Amino acid sequence: MFGHEITGLITEENYCDQIQLTYNGIFWDGSVTYGGYSKMLVADHRFVVHVPDNLPMDAAAPLLCAGITVFCPLKDNNMLELRGKRIGVIGLGGLGHVAVKFGKAFGHHVTVISTSPSKEKEAKEHLGADDFIVSTNVAQMQAQKRSLDFILDTVSAKHSLGPYLELLKVKGTLVIVGAPDKPIDLPSFPLIFGKRVVKGSMTGSMKETQEMLNVCGKYNITCDIETIMPEKINEALDRLAKNDVKYRFVIDIGADKLSKL
Amino acid sequence: MFGHEITGLITEENYCDQIQLTYNGIFWDGSVTYGGYSKMLVADHRFVVHVPDNLPMDAAAPLLCAGITVFCPLKDNNMLELRGKRIGVIGLGGLGHVAVKFGKAFGHHVTVISTSPSKEKEAKEHLGADDFIVSTNVAQMQAQKRSLDFILDTVSAKHSLGPYLELLKVKGTLVIVGAPDKPIDLPSFPLIFGKRVVKGSMTGSMKETQEMLNVCGKYNITCDIETIMPEKINEALDRLAKNDVKYRFVIDIGADKLSKL
Repeated sequence: MFGHEITGLITEENYCDQIQLTYNGIFWDGSVTYGGYSKMLVADHRFVVHVPDNLPMDAAAPLLCAGITVFCPLKDNNMLELRGKRIGVIGLGGLGHVAVKFGKAFGHHVTVISTSPSKEKEAKEHLGADDFIVSTNVAQMQAQKRSLDFILDTVSAKHSLGPYLELLKVKGTLVIVGAPDKPIDLPSFPLIFGKRVVKGSMTGSMKETQEMLNVCGKYNITCDIETIMPEKINEALDRLAKNDVKYRFVIDIGADKLSKL
Repeated sequence: MFGHEITGLITEENYCDQIQLTYNGIFWDGSVTYGGYSKMLVADHRFVVHVPDNLPMDAAAPLLCAGITVFCPLKDNNMLELRGKRIGVIGLGGLGHVAVKFGKAFGHHVTVISTSPSKEKEAKEHLGADDFIVSTNVAQMQAQKRSLDFILDTVSAKHSLGPYLELLKVKGTLVIVGAPDKPIDLPSFPLIFGKRVVKGSMTGSMKETQEMLNVCGKYNITCDIETIMPEKINEALDRLAKNDVKYRFVIDIGADKLSKL
C-alpha cells in the first residue's frame, strides 16, 4: 500500500482508506502525530503548499482546514464557474464564515441559515451575506421553500435535514461538511419528492488545497481569527467550549519558540 | 399555474409542486381521483404511454410504478450507457426485483442486499443476481466494503444508511426510492469520509416512462405478478400485509366488467 502511495498516483489523498492524520493520529511507524504542535516537522515536498504572498500567515492558517473544507464542495458543484446561483450556508462559525466569503467572491446570492437571530447583522454587514433565515422560524423557512440551488451544511450538532432540504429547488444539492457524532435525521419525503441530493465532503487533496490558496490570494480571502500565544491555549479552549471566538483561534507557535531562545 | 402546465413546457411533471396524484388524490375540481379503479378514465394524450406489443398487459402494468421508480435512478446515474459496474440493490420486493432485472439487462454486476437469507436462491437462480449479502451479517458486510459503484435502496422501513454507505466506493452513490415514514438515520462519517452521495428519486416523467417501457420491450422485462379478480382484493390486501406475494398483485379490472355485462 505504501509503495502505491509514494508513486504519486493518488490524487485524492484525503479519501485514502489508509489515511494518516497529521495530528492526534498514529503514524506508520507507530508514533503519535503532533502536526503544527510539533517542535519540528519534516514533510515530503508533495505535502507542502505555497501560501500566496498577499495573505498574512496567521489568518491564512485556518484556510488549510476551514477553507479547504468549504472550497471543495463549492468547486465540485460548479460554483467556481457558475455565477448568480442561490447558495445557502447553514451555521455561521469557523466553516460558515469562510463559505460566505467564497460564495460572495464567486458572484453568488448567499443566504445564511442560523439558529441565532443575533448573527444577522454580522452575516450581512461584516461578511456581505445577501439574506438571513432563522432556521427555527417556521414562517421564514416556509417563505423560502424551493428557492436555493445549493446548501452547505456546516452544523456539527445532531439535526434533521428535512427543513433544509425543503429550501432547495428540485434537484438541488446539500453538502454536509460538519461531522455530528450522532446520525443526522434524513426524512425521505423532501429528498424523494424534490429529487434532491445530499453529499458528504471532507477537506481536499493537496492539489485542491493549493488551488484553494491561489483562489484566496486572488480574492484576498482569509479567515477571521484571534491570535493567541501558546500560554493562553487552555484559556482559549475554555472560550471555544462557550463559542466565544470569532471565528478561529490561531496559536503563534513561532512566538513561543522565540521567547524561549 | 395550470395554464403553464398545459403549454407542455414541463418535462418533469412528477416533481411539480402542484402535483395531482392519479388515485387517492384530490383533483383540480375537488373530486377524488380513482385512477385504474375508475369505471372510466379520460386522459390527455400527453399522459398516455404506449406499451410495447411484446409485453403482456398484466405483467407490464406495475412497470408504470415499480419499473419507472427504479429505471430513473439507473438512467440518471449513467447505468444505461456504462457496462460492468457493481450495483447493489437493497431489498428484494416489488421494486427490488425489477431493479435486478434492469441491472443484469444493462450488463452490470448485481448484488442483492437483504435481511432475509432465504431470498438468496430466488435472487441468484430466478433473477440472475451475481451476489447476495445478508445485511445483518456484519462479516459479510465488512468483506464488501468500498466495493460497489451504485446502490438502489428500495427499503420502505426505517433504517440506517451507515452500513450500506460503507459498501460504496469513494464517491459512490446511493439512491433512496423507498419512502419510510420515519426519518432515515444518516451517520455523517461514512458520508463524509467516502465523499459519498445520497439521492432521492420518485417515479419519472411521461417521457422517461415511455423510454422505460421501450427499454422493457427491447429486453423483454416485466414484473413478476399474481393476477387476481376484483372480488379477491380484500384477501390480496391481507396477504400483502404478510408479504405473501411475488412480487406484485395485478387486478384484472376488465374481467370484472365483463362478468357484469
